[in-house]
Order: sequence, then structure tokens, then C-alpha cells
Amino acid sequence: MSAYFDHNATTPIDDHVLQAMMPYLRDEYGNASSRHDSGTRARQALDVAREQVAALVGVQAAQVVFVSGGTEANNMFVKGMAAYLKPTQIAISAIEHPCVLKPATSLARTGWKVRKLKADTDGTVNLDDVDDALRVPTGMVSVMLANNETGVLQPVAQVAERARAARAWMHTDAVQCVGKLPVDFESLGVHAMTLSAHKMYGPKGAGALIVDKRLPVKALIDGGGHEGGLRSGTENVPAIVGFGAACELAASRMAELGEHTRRLRELIDRGLAEQGATIFGSHAPRIPNTTYFAFKDIDGDLLVIELNKCGFATASGSACSSTSAEPSATLLAMGVEPDIARGAVRLSFGASNTLQQTEEFLIVVAEVVNRLRRLTAVAV
Amino acid sequence: MSAYFDHNATTPIDDHVLQAMMPYLRDEYGNASSRHDSGTRARQALDVAREQVAALVGVQAAQVVFVSGGTEANNMFVKGMAAYLKPTQIAISAIEHPCVLKPATSLARTGWKVRKLKADTDGTVNLDDVDDALRVPTGMVSVMLANNETGVLQPVAQVAERARAARAWMHTDAVQCVGKLPVDFESLGVHAMTLSAHKMYGPKGAGALIVDKRLPVKALIDGGGHEGGLRSGTENVPAIVGFGAACELAASRMAELGEHTRRLRELIDRGLAEQGATIFGSHAPRIPNTTYFAFKDIDGDLLVIELNKCGFATASGSACSSTSAEPSATLLAMGVEPDIARGAVRLSFGASNTLQQTEEFLIVVAEVVNRLRRLTAVAV
Repeated sequence: MSAYFDHNATTPIDDHVLQAMMPYLRDEYGNASSRHDSGTRARQALDVAREQVAALVGVQAAQVVFVSGGTEANNMFVKGMAAYLKPTQIAISAIEHPCVLKPATSLARTGWKVRKLKADTDGTVNLDDVDDALRVPTGMVSVMLANNETGVLQPVAQVAERARAARAWMHTDAVQCVGKLPVDFESLGVHAMTLSAHKMYGPKGAGALIVDKRLPVKALIDGGGHEGGLRSGTENVPAIVGFGAACELAASRMAELGEHTRRLRELIDRGLAEQGATIFGSHAPRIPNTTYFAFKDIDGDLLVIELNKCGFATASGSACSSTSAEPSATLLAMGVEPDIARGAVRLSFGASNTLQQTEEFLIVVAEVVNRLRRLTAVAV
Repeated sequence: MSAYFDHNATTPIDDHVLQAMMPYLRDEYGNASSRHDSGTRARQALDVAREQVAALVGVQAAQVVFVSGGTEANNMFVKGMAAYLKPTQIAISAIEHPCVLKPATSLARTGWKVRKLKADTDGTVNLDDVDDALRVPTGMVSVMLANNETGVLQPVAQVAERARAARAWMHTDAVQCVGKLPVDFESLGVHAMTLSAHKMYGPKGAGALIVDKRLPVKALIDGGGHEGGLRSGTENVPAIVGFGAACELAASRMAELGEHTRRLRELIDRGLAEQGATIFGSHAPRIPNTTYFAFKDIDGDLLVIELNKCGFATASGSACSSTSAEPSATLLAMGVEPDIARGAVRLSFGASNTLQQTEEFLIVVAEVVNRLRRLTAVAV
């Protein structure tokens, strides 16, 4: 038995998506800026993909800026806005991914004040603290739509309403939510939103910043003037075509996939709780595929390694970051004790996972935890 | 008959390269930062690719920073160095690609002086002007290894020697040369070098900045700390694997491919000259696959369109840039009259091109030019 329970780190490319990409990896290799037929066909493929991505989040195609991935899109928002705005305050949630946190922190050198918005113990951003933060002049606010570790959904629409009232530009990193739950740019009231293809059964190497057309954002990467001047560089046509196909696929199966992963997650959550695990963020609304838990006195990294030996691919802390011994910043922001936080393991389910895999996992994790506990007991 | 004569804009992915990529587009989809077997295999694939890329240009694997492409690498050098250096002068050649020119120009807002190094009429950067430029304190110098339009090779080693003597950091955009001619980082004496996979039969979406380990460069894209903190974001494993395979392929067939394209280019150059065309940069050493020409009173854009109708994919001006009616900045810098420059058409040959295609092209271009001349004569 083996199972991939790490879909928040990356997903396999869906077969339909790969089939859509293949012509552009083979015969249709033209540069979309070229003025011959080969270039024109590449350009047309980008146009189709742009429509597909736009449709999934309810915007116009012209609002889609293709970039290399979610990290670039988040950097582009934070740094690209700072290039135009007068330095004031940037407010980000205390549970943002490093690719929002680090660019925001880097603005401090140019006179920006970085304000972290507190999270409640259930893993959601505290709206009173948002109100408090917005009492001082604020240029940008960035709050993720769903946390990558806990899966907890954030009150982005409510934050956006407050940000707009305070005349701040509002961004959301939506990479962990789009494709798992319906997302509508307009209803959220944000000015910018980050998407990533490889988190939703598309390829690595493609993402987008969805922008309000009035957004005063400067390009992070300058050159030939691609993407309306907002992102230069030869477009990665196969990856963007795959991104478009992944968005279309997501729209067609979101309800079904959500139901499927939610069922697996419920079974796992119940089983883990029965075994004495703490489930982080389980009292808040979550994306359907994610659970994040810890067993007392069991190191999360060690558990991930032992589970891997048994064939289960899982994650400790944030799987998108480099190896680090620090406990999860998200859990610390939620008030979890460092000793408990160090035990955190994330499971994130996807299309290929089965009921049998989750049942097997519950048996295996119980065995592993017992074994690790016996070893610890002997060592003490 | 049809032929793709636009390999400087982008190349097809070689079959061997695509075969190397396929496992990573299918079953080996792991995130290279994940600590399970799927992640480990992705990480190992990146390690292999890093060695392959490093070997092609004679550096250590640790000097390779993978990015999304050449444009990003050039932006990373210019902006990432400016983030650490005291603003002084940045000297770039007058014939740089927009993805060096525009980032350099943008530094003016932060106190940098942009100095353009003159080109001679043969298309090479003038070393006396380099000496002149370096009389004032200079933080960075960037001169491309081969021009994307003319194919003319630049005296990068000589510029680098001067830059080092002046204590400036030296960068070269080598995307149009690597894979066509042997390139050795150390012999050139540069501190940083830009590569792009899709210009050398690899995939779009991968490139590298090769760095001297002492280079004081700040990341353009921050986050999870990938690529030694110099480029965050989930690594595009399939594209990077393809980049590595393309580098290995290039090393194995460079001499043969160079000989092949040089033969086609010589035939074309002779034929075009006999038809009265001007060949730009033909008196200077060039990469073997490129020729850039103009017929008097024939608009280059129009000629590209008419050649496309006859099945020949060619480029006018710089094919990597967005559509623009301005004559080529490279040609203007070489002292070509705007009226002649507007006629510029570039042919760039590659592995799949044949002698028959070039012979056919010479017949077709003569017909098209005659037809366009008759139309112009009637119109006048």
C-alpha cells in the first residue's frame, strides 16, 4: 500500500491536462510573439487558456497576468505595488506563506511598516485586529483565502470590505482554495488574487496574478513587454495551456472532488481524534481536502519520515518551504504551544486517493505512533 | 514546402529532451521540497540537471540558480545587484535585449546612471567606448555574448577584463550563444551569465543565472528559500530536467550542429547577397545559425508576412519583443539608416533545417521581393 497525501504541496498533472499540453510540447513550439503561423497558433492557445483561467474565478480575460507560479505572483503584488505607492503600512495575516511574508518584510527597508494581523485559536484571521490595524494609513492588505497548512478558510471578503473602506489595496493568495471550492473575484471584493496551476492538477511553471484593472502595479520582470507589459519573458505556452485546461477541469469536477476528499478527511479526522491526536483548525471552515494534526510527544518530522517508509507521502510544517527545524509559524500564531506545534503533520487529499488508503493510513499511523512512543519510553 | 527559420525566437523541444521530461510530467510529480520519496526523487532530478547545466559552461553545480527563463535571469542580475550596491553607473551595450535594457533603465529612479556602450558598424561593442565608460565609477557592466538579431559575437572576455580592472561586476546574457558555440564561464571572466533552455532545444519555463559565488545579488522572488534563497517558488522539475538534458545534448552535438547551420547560412548569405540584399554584421564573427538582412525599399514586416504565406517562418526586428513599428535598436546602434533597418528580416537555422529548404527559400524570397517591388512601382 502506498498513498500520496500531499496535494497541497503539489498535485499530479491530470491526464486530460497533459493531453492538452502535449501538442505544445511537440509540434506547436512557436514563440507567441512571433509573426508567423507557428507564433500565431501559440498566441491563440494563450488566448484560450486566459479565457479558461478567467472563467474559473469570474473575471475578464484581460485581468489575467500569467506568471511562473504563485510565489512570483505574490512577489509581484507586494513589490510591484510598493514601486508605485507611497510607503505606509502593509498589513498581512500572521499565517501568510513565506512568499507573501518575506516580500512584505523586505519593504521595511524602503520605509514600509509591516503589520501582522492576528489569528484566532481556530486558525482564522481576527477581524477586530484587522479593524485595529487599519486605524493607521495602510497601502496594502494581503490575507490568504485558505491556509496551506491547516486548510482553514479566511474571512477575505470581510477583510476586503474593511480594506476598501480604509482605501487600501487588497490581495489574496488563493492558491490553496481555487479548484477546491468555488472562488469569485468580484464577490470577494479583492483587487488582486494569486493562482497556481500545480496546486490544481496543472503543471508546475504557470500561475497568475488576477488584477483589478485599476491596480497600480509595476512589473517585477521587465523586457519585451509581454502580458501587457506586466510580465516580460517568452510565455511558457505548454504550461499555460495546461493551466487553462486545469481550470476547466476544476470547474467541471469541483463539487464531486470536494465531496470525495471531504469524505476521506472526515474519516481520517475521526480516526485520528480517536487515537488522541489534536486536529488543528477543525473548529473553523476548511477546504475539504486538508487535515493538520499532532500526537503529543511525537515529532512531526520523524512521523513524516516513518510514514514515508510505510508508503505514505505526507508533510510536516509547510511543505513548500525549505527544510527548517522551527515549528510552524501558522500554529504559533494560533497560540499552539511550540511542543505541540513540533508534532504537526499535514495530510492533503486529492483525486486519486481512496477510502482504502485512508483506512490503511489509520492503522499504520497508530502502529507508528505506538512504536515511536515505546522507543521514547525506553530512551527515557 | 515549409520551414522554420526562427530558432533564435524559440526552438522545438528535442525528442530526447522531451523523453527525459516525460516521467516528471507523469508519475514523478513530487515537490522537490517534500520530505517523502516522491519529493526526494524530484530533488535528485534537479541535482542531475544542475550538474548537466554546470558542465556545459564549466562551472560548479552550486553556481547554477534555476529561474523561469532568460528574461527573469537578466532582471535578477540587474535588480538583484542594485539592491546591494551603492548607486553608481551601470554600463550596458547599446544592442542589449530589452530584458537587460529595461531593468537597467528602471534603475535610474534609484540614482543609477545608465551608460550605453556603443556598437561599431559591424555589430560589435566598441572597446574604446568601454574604456571611456569605465572612467567613472561603475557598479555593473552587462554585454551579451551574441546578439539575438545579428548573431554577432561580442568581445565579452575583453569587456570583462576591463570591468574587473574597474571593480565593476560583469554579466553576460549568453542565451543566444550557449548551445551554438562552446562557452566557458571562467575563460570569459564574467561574474554572472544568463542561460535559457528554450533557445537550445529545451522547454520554455527554465533558465539559469550562473553566478560567481561572491556575487552580491539579492533574490528577485522571495519566499520558501529555494535555490539557496536566491529564487523561491516550487521548482519546475520537468522543465529543469529538460534544461539539463538539453545542455547534455548541446555538448554532444554542438560541433556537428554548428557545422550544419553554418553551411546553410553560408548558402543563404551568398544567395541573398547575389539578390542585392544587405547582410548585417556579416563582417564580424557570428554564431553559425543566424543571418539578418534587408532588401532596399522592402518593408521587413511585410516580407515576413509574405514569406509566412509561402511557408517560411522568419522574424523581423527582435522576435522576442512585442509587436512594434520602430526599427531595430540594434541596427540603429550599428549606424544603419532607419529606412534600411525597417527592411530587416532574421533567419535563424536549427537542427531540422535542410539544404533543400534553404535553396527553396532563395527562390521564394526572390519571387516575393520582385512581386513587392512591382506593387510598389505601380503604387508610385
